[in-house]
Amino acid sequence: MARIVEGIAASAGIAIARAFLLKSPDFHIERKTIGSAKREMVRLAAALEEAKQELESVKQRAQAKLGEDKAAIFAAHLLVLQDPEFIGPIQNKIREENINVEFAVREVANMYIGMFEQLDNEYMKERAADIRDVTQRLLAHLLGVKLADLQAISEEVIIVAEDVTPSDTAQMDTRYVKGFATDIGGRTSHSAIMARSLEIPAVVGTKQVTEAVEPNMWIVVDGLDGNVIINPTDEELEAYRKKQAQYEAQRATWAKLVNEKTVTADGVRIELAANIGTPEDIESVLKNGAEGIGLYRTEFLYMGRTQLPSEEEQYNAYKTVLEKMDGKPVVIRTLDIGGDKELPYLNMPKELNPFLGFRAIRLCLEMQDMFRVQLRALLRASMFGNLKIMFPMIATLEEFRQAKQIVEEEKAKLIAEGISVAGRIEIGIMVEVPAIALLADVFAKEVDFFSIGTNDLIQYTMAADRMNEKVSYLYQPYHPALLRLIDMVIQAAHKEGKWAGMCGEMAGDPVAIPLLLGLGLDEFSMSASSILQARNMMKKLSREELEAHARKAMTMSTGEEAVRYVKQWLIP
Amino acid sequence: MARIVEGIAASAGIAIARAFLLKSPDFHIERKTIGSAKREMVRLAAALEEAKQELESVKQRAQAKLGEDKAAIFAAHLLVLQDPEFIGPIQNKIREENINVEFAVREVANMYIGMFEQLDNEYMKERAADIRDVTQRLLAHLLGVKLADLQAISEEVIIVAEDVTPSDTAQMDTRYVKGFATDIGGRTSHSAIMARSLEIPAVVGTKQVTEAVEPNMWIVVDGLDGNVIINPTDEELEAYRKKQAQYEAQRATWAKLVNEKTVTADGVRIELAANIGTPEDIESVLKNGAEGIGLYRTEFLYMGRTQLPSEEEQYNAYKTVLEKMDGKPVVIRTLDIGGDKELPYLNMPKELNPFLGFRAIRLCLEMQDMFRVQLRALLRASMFGNLKIMFPMIATLEEFRQAKQIVEEEKAKLIAEGISVAGRIEIGIMVEVPAIALLADVFAKEVDFFSIGTNDLIQYTMAADRMNEKVSYLYQPYHPALLRLIDMVIQAAHKEGKWAGMCGEMAGDPVAIPLLLGLGLDEFSMSASSILQARNMMKKLSREELEAHARKAMTMSTGEEAVRYVKQWLIP
Repeated sequence: MARIVEGIAASAGIAIARAFLLKSPDFHIERKTIGSAKREMVRLAAALEEAKQELESVKQRAQAKLGEDKAAIFAAHLLVLQDPEFIGPIQNKIREENINVEFAVREVANMYIGMFEQLDNEYMKERAADIRDVTQRLLAHLLGVKLADLQAISEEVIIVAEDVTPSDTAQMDTRYVKGFATDIGGRTSHSAIMARSLEIPAVVGTKQVTEAVEPNMWIVVDGLDGNVIINPTDEELEAYRKKQAQYEAQRATWAKLVNEKTVTADGVRIELAANIGTPEDIESVLKNGAEGIGLYRTEFLYMGRTQLPSEEEQYNAYKTVLEKMDGKPVVIRTLDIGGDKELPYLNMPKELNPFLGFRAIRLCLEMQDMFRVQLRALLRASMFGNLKIMFPMIATLEEFRQAKQIVEEEKAKLIAEGISVAGRIEIGIMVEVPAIALLADVFAKEVDFFSIGTNDLIQYTMAADRMNEKVSYLYQPYHPALLRLIDMVIQAAHKEGKWAGMCGEMAGDPVAIPLLLGLGLDEFSMSASSILQARNMMKKLSREELEAHARKAMTMSTGEEAVRYVKQWLIP
Repeated sequence: MARIVEGIAASAGIAIARAFLLKSPDFHIERKTIGSAKREMVRLAAALEEAKQELESVKQRAQAKLGEDKAAIFAAHLLVLQDPEFIGPIQNKIREENINVEFAVREVANMYIGMFEQLDNEYMKERAADIRDVTQRLLAHLLGVKLADLQAISEEVIIVAEDVTPSDTAQMDTRYVKGFATDIGGRTSHSAIMARSLEIPAVVGTKQVTEAVEPNMWIVVDGLDGNVIINPTDEELEAYRKKQAQYEAQRATWAKLVNEKTVTADGVRIELAANIGTPEDIESVLKNGAEGIGLYRTEFLYMGRTQLPSEEEQYNAYKTVLEKMDGKPVVIRTLDIGGDKELPYLNMPKELNPFLGFRAIRLCLEMQDMFRVQLRALLRASMFGNLKIMFPMIATLEEFRQAKQIVEEEKAKLIAEGISVAGRIEIGIMVEVPAIALLADVFAKEVDFFSIGTNDLIQYTMAADRMNEKVSYLYQPYHPALLRLIDMVIQAAHKEGKWAGMCGEMAGDPVAIPLLLGLGLDEFSMSASSILQARNMMKKLSREELEAHARKAMTMSTGEEAVRYVKQWLIP
């Protein structure tokens, strides 16, 4: 019998392949008093040079195979290797304390890693990850240990790792990587997002898969049920090959729906749209037959760089997306920075509660120069497709009116400059702040549409940070309080002849879809990879039949009762 | 003409007295290379000894005049003076860099202060404040500068300061302190809370009063309108004496209501209760004629110490309050720690968003040993008055049921041990999490009462940290979304024959009182000092007449419109 390790199903599908074990070597480093500091200094210089050459090569290969974006992380690692604030203290330690270079390297690295991680700042945490990576590489050279070389993978494997980090994925040739199985992480960690974007199965958060797996063992990653099967027997392999074939057959059925519209069994037209982060995501959007973009997160244009993107750069990105979507609706959200997403070059003050802080539209209304550049880029791009503009984190009508006013001003300026702008551009808002849902009747008179952002809406409604493990039990998408807020938004929108969509995780969840359909949601925006399955499901559902049950779910006492009710009465 | 400086009216009333200017001396400290480190080391030792003796005396006087509690802060300062982690680096700096002691002291102090303040942890911030205080004292001795001695005040003064800190108030003989005027702070800063508790006028956040005032100048603090009048003319003095007399007369009228019940003009009985933090607060509660305690914050029992309070200690505190309230209702809230209130000895992990984190009932349900000790103390004390138990930060019915179950278990255990417990103890919840208000109809079937905590409820409903200046514009108590939530709670309570109260800032605000009365609120819990004014106001109000207007306020589009409506139609 094979050993089965359970985890979180983070990306659907079944992968069967040999394990590529990506484990940090356990360097045994002792503090040693040395006779000659000079010798240690020479060893340090040699290791630095070797690590540098190795990184240059890693970087060049990443650049060639995976593009400039992916290679950027190695440029950051190279900078660490040359940073006098990193090297200097190591040299001092060797000289002053007469100790071996390995110990000095690790001490200094741990000092910086501890310091940066404590700062609760995403940017500094990335710096901590960089130092950890570089230190690993340096110690490997000093100790003559060989690190696993992800770039060397040239046959089909499943990556088994404590975690799959951005520097790992930047080295992978994804043609050969058939799945992920990790010790840590959840559905929203880098490993999970990456797997869904690569459309490969993943099971994360197993706590122990790296302990259970030996290099080159055959394993199965069951991303449907969240299991990793280690050393499967022939019978098990047979069963999983069958399950894999069934899933592939299902996908093939779904794939036939790629050019169809989404219509329910009782003839209601629904819009199934995709969430994207960059123009490159469009390929998968088209392949999966999305009827529009329900959320284009423009943050990525602003991140991983040292200054704001220019109007031209933004214009080109928006234009590309609009053109490729060929007249289908494209909802572009204005900059949603702050909270857990920081832009180091804006030098924003540190906040005690960033999720309740100065972010998104709050920040844009103050930093209007930056906001206006984005709006000009959007307005100019509007000529190339069906643009809708959406503001994030609106909490009051004053904020919405002010933001809309700024759009009008920039529009007037562009027209005065002789630049064309589309005649009618819908302007809507995200529903993330509970106050908006509570006042949806008021807002529906002024906005063109609502898009419910469930992640944030849940976290504020329950007063629980979804990233905080101690209170993650309160992240309850089916809590009746949340269902009531969703209902308020949809009802209010329809009363004024507007549409209501959802662009949070929930919109693509097969358990939530019948419920949201019953509540009358008009647009569902999700990961591109979920669209065909959702369309297939909706074809079989009758909105009319679901409505009474959906309304009944809102009267349940607890999230658990509501989930039970939904599973019993609403899932086909 | 006198100069008038505007600020925030933080505590009502008019004070007229000479200014006691409490300004940090501007030490001019330059880095000097010194000939003999030995001499500097001697100077350091002498200053440390002088500061120590001075602090001992400050501590003893505080102990004698103001009690052990107040003196505790100076014990912390004495510890800093003896801390090798503070003194050691100063000595090293002098020796290694051959520099003057003053410069070394300031460098080391700034290093620690910067480090601690960056940690975003209330406890560490207090440590930073301690170091700042001690450094000030040390530098004063080194430089022969005399610091203002608050303990020496022996005639009536108004304290004019950048800020009034806990170590300042711990040194004041409050008989002589007639008012505060400060540069920084808001209605909820230490200075403001202290002033209201001492019942002296205060104007805070003037930005400039310490610049504008010279020592011993005559000034007027107008805590009604938020003005500080500097060097008033005779006419102005006359006018303010009149205003003072009017206010005192008003207070005298209110004082006659001290033994009356609160009844509206149309005969509705309302309960006016007080918020307290310690049994010592009861004196002011009784003096102001509260009809009960609407919120006893038990956190103070747990704070400023090194381990959890024992069951006996808690029992005595609760018993004292219940006995002194002599059968009047006393709502005791179980431990509400976490968020911005940390207990260092619990070693809680640092959180990215503490306001959305592991706090209050969430923490108590996990740390059940601690929770059960508090519940046992409460249940034992229940025999001595009219106890009601209230759970903070409930977000789901499961949490409430579990907490209530634990109460029942402890009750059964006590009874089995032969210890008496009151037969009927109401168990209710705070309404702070939006989900609770949205599901109030469900909760009203199981809880005995609701008490709305407006500060937190606003901050979650608007997704804005009220302590964060960049988003404090979103702290809108009259936002229609909030009014709708309040209405949901009151309606749901009444439908099930339960009562609904409020223990947030809003309950004592004269602008909010008619509105809340119109919405049907049953209990208003506020600072003791606001009770008589509220009673006087309510006597003149008719709930029936207010109702239609209160409901109309909920339909306004913005917080501003709602405030305007309330001021126009609801304020007598």
